[in-house]
Amino acid sequence: MRAYEIIRKKRDGHKLEEAEIRFLIEAFVQGGLPDYQMAAWLMAAFLKGLDEQETFWLTDAMRLSGDQVELKGIEGFTVDKHSTGGVGDKTSLVLGPVLAALGLRVAKLSGRGLGHTGGTIDKLESIKGFSCDLSPEAFVKAVNTIGLAIIGQTPTLVPADKKIYALRDVTATIDSIPLIAASIMSKKLAVQNKAIVLDVKVGSGAFMKTLGDARELARLMVRIGKQAGRQVAAVLSNMDEPLGRMIGNALEVREAIDTLRGKGPADLVALVKALAQEALLAENRRLTQAEAAARVDQALAGGQAWSSFVAMVRSQGGDPALVEHPERLPTARSVVPLKVDRAGWVERIECEEVGLAAMMLGAGRETKESVIDPAVGFHLNRKVGDRVEAGDVLADVHVDPARDNTRGIQRLRDAYHLSDRPVQAQPLILDIVS
Amino acid sequence: MRAYEIIRKKRDGHKLEEAEIRFLIEAFVQGGLPDYQMAAWLMAAFLKGLDEQETFWLTDAMRLSGDQVELKGIEGFTVDKHSTGGVGDKTSLVLGPVLAALGLRVAKLSGRGLGHTGGTIDKLESIKGFSCDLSPEAFVKAVNTIGLAIIGQTPTLVPADKKIYALRDVTATIDSIPLIAASIMSKKLAVQNKAIVLDVKVGSGAFMKTLGDARELARLMVRIGKQAGRQVAAVLSNMDEPLGRMIGNALEVREAIDTLRGKGPADLVALVKALAQEALLAENRRLTQAEAAARVDQALAGGQAWSSFVAMVRSQGGDPALVEHPERLPTARSVVPLKVDRAGWVERIECEEVGLAAMMLGAGRETKESVIDPAVGFHLNRKVGDRVEAGDVLADVHVDPARDNTRGIQRLRDAYHLSDRPVQAQPLILDIVS
Repeated sequence: MRAYEIIRKKRDGHKLEEAEIRFLIEAFVQGGLPDYQMAAWLMAAFLKGLDEQETFWLTDAMRLSGDQVELKGIEGFTVDKHSTGGVGDKTSLVLGPVLAALGLRVAKLSGRGLGHTGGTIDKLESIKGFSCDLSPEAFVKAVNTIGLAIIGQTPTLVPADKKIYALRDVTATIDSIPLIAASIMSKKLAVQNKAIVLDVKVGSGAFMKTLGDARELARLMVRIGKQAGRQVAAVLSNMDEPLGRMIGNALEVREAIDTLRGKGPADLVALVKALAQEALLAENRRLTQAEAAARVDQALAGGQAWSSFVAMVRSQGGDPALVEHPERLPTARSVVPLKVDRAGWVERIECEEVGLAAMMLGAGRETKESVIDPAVGFHLNRKVGDRVEAGDVLADVHVDPARDNTRGIQRLRDAYHLSDRPVQAQPLILDIVS
Repeated sequence: MRAYEIIRKKRDGHKLEEAEIRFLIEAFVQGGLPDYQMAAWLMAAFLKGLDEQETFWLTDAMRLSGDQVELKGIEGFTVDKHSTGGVGDKTSLVLGPVLAALGLRVAKLSGRGLGHTGGTIDKLESIKGFSCDLSPEAFVKAVNTIGLAIIGQTPTLVPADKKIYALRDVTATIDSIPLIAASIMSKKLAVQNKAIVLDVKVGSGAFMKTLGDARELARLMVRIGKQAGRQVAAVLSNMDEPLGRMIGNALEVREAIDTLRGKGPADLVALVKALAQEALLAENRRLTQAEAAARVDQALAGGQAWSSFVAMVRSQGGDPALVEHPERLPTARSVVPLKVDRAGWVERIECEEVGLAAMMLGAGRETKESVIDPAVGFHLNRKVGDRVEAGDVLADVHVDPARDNTRGIQRLRDAYHLSDRPVQAQPLILDIVS
């Protein structure tokens, strides 16, 4: 089998065979296929497409390139959640405890943040003492007793995706629905969860700019997951503005705590409920939508989800007193109000810009080596649809005054787009695909 | 300027700007742009196309990547000829002397052959003593006195093409009309000839399989040449079988000699005349087609072209007696008849297969280091349209009996396709584009 023929076949728009796709991925991971041939193939696949079956084979070949995490010893119905990437997205911090409270098992492998999106591990590490560095035995034990544990992602999980993603990133082949689906699902399927709930973000701040594209990606991922024998559902959620009001590591933990205590922002609460409901329905198909919704409401309102969160913090070395009294979490030395100089209605808040602005304050990593400041970030006082008057505070900016924060604050200012006419905020949940 | 943005722009089907194309080529030649980015761009350009203006910029950027050959000191109207590559193509050996006899100047830079097509230099070097290793002064002097000289192509002529072609060859991006046009014309325009006549081959044995594609390529190359201020015309010629009857270095020299002496095969004669006519018309637009044709006929029939050839051989160190008595050129020690086992009509002779068969006998190079045997090759007794009876000799195979020639002979056999019905041979000249 020759890489040249496989490139030519895809270039000419023909469907590849399973053996051809597996050969391509194996040869590339083993170093027998040079970057330039993979780059040519990726561009051909980008422009000519891959059908559902080809995408499944690609996903499966990528999955098999590294370790398989079997979650051995974990009892019960294991559920994983994946988000296609948002700003202010602390959903995992809330959803995990909710699912544990509902009797499901959350054995989560998480990554650190890079660029404009934060990582769940970075957020949790703003709780002093909290560690994601559990032994396999401690991890299994925690999931079986508390229902929930989070560890760092092993570097040997799906090396094919790492290598292909790095190449796509410099060859303008990122924004392809089949390639995105294979990248996400290869990592999800390498971990043997019984169910996967996907949060597919839609809008100016997401990979998928339109509802049509998001639906296509969601459907493709759901089908791939089902072909692999898993329960999968996707929630399509709006990303025309950041999720919730807090951006920054400790600030997002605080907002997650507020949400678990019944005082969360409406958009975050709606998203957590939608995802939790899909997870419950995946476990038990006989449940009605209304029954599932009621159980989720109860887990949140009755305090069981909050208890699960506190138990997880304790079991992973964090001090429960810090989350019981979140004012003791890392706090910025200075809070600067960002005021608006004109009246109007907030029309849009560019997510990527907000994420990059937060990174410039020190909340995120520009390179893998960057050190994060857990205390800095934004509290957005105004969101899409809100009326503002000249002089109003759009956001409180939590900063380290020892840094020069001018450019970060200006970038947040520029991320806000005002309209002269009233603006109707979009609903957060746009669709469910299952 | 970022390579990423240029790749993305072409991927999305947008027209690139001149500065973007120049940046891409300069960065690639200087090593600042990695192979994988160029490969992705080439695939995007292959699938989304380049318009005439983009192709001109690409051609010009490639041309400027190496030496410019100014042909300083050469007096008169300089003409170059280029063929898109054929088998049995000894046209240059005949056309050069014809053009010199017509008073035009042929200062030719030629390459050696690789793979299934032979090189003009390899053919000429089968004349003992003939050397293409002239000093620049001797080259200029020869062109000014005889009208004709051939030297080897400098390795610093258009390095961008060498590097890009090597990458296209392994990424399935060869068969793109704009990329082919830029590759050919960058090399032609790096030499300051006043006119260029192009021989665009069409058919199963050529890059361009259809007349439509060949016309598109010819038109694009003619327009690029004109935009660069040159006179350019293209002859579209049939390549559904080898040109003439001889394949192999000394055998092709013999056929060229026969042609210069008025006993050439009809297809080769027709092609030489068509190309020479276009060269004359490029020099003098007031000439009618009929006048140009009459002058070409006269140069061939009157012996002036033959005299020019002999003068060139002498001036470049070859022994004129060898071409006056071509039986003294290298001769194979054994001639094997290739007989046909059934009756029919010759429908097609696959050029690439004939070329590869000749290479297997020792007539061509498999790698740059291969040593050529000038004596071996084929004499095709039967060509397309000919009736054959079982037992007829399709071809005489000139071999070195010390080699195992079984596979080469079998390959020639397989290159012949017979039909049970009469076959009409195609005309050689299919169109003229100017």
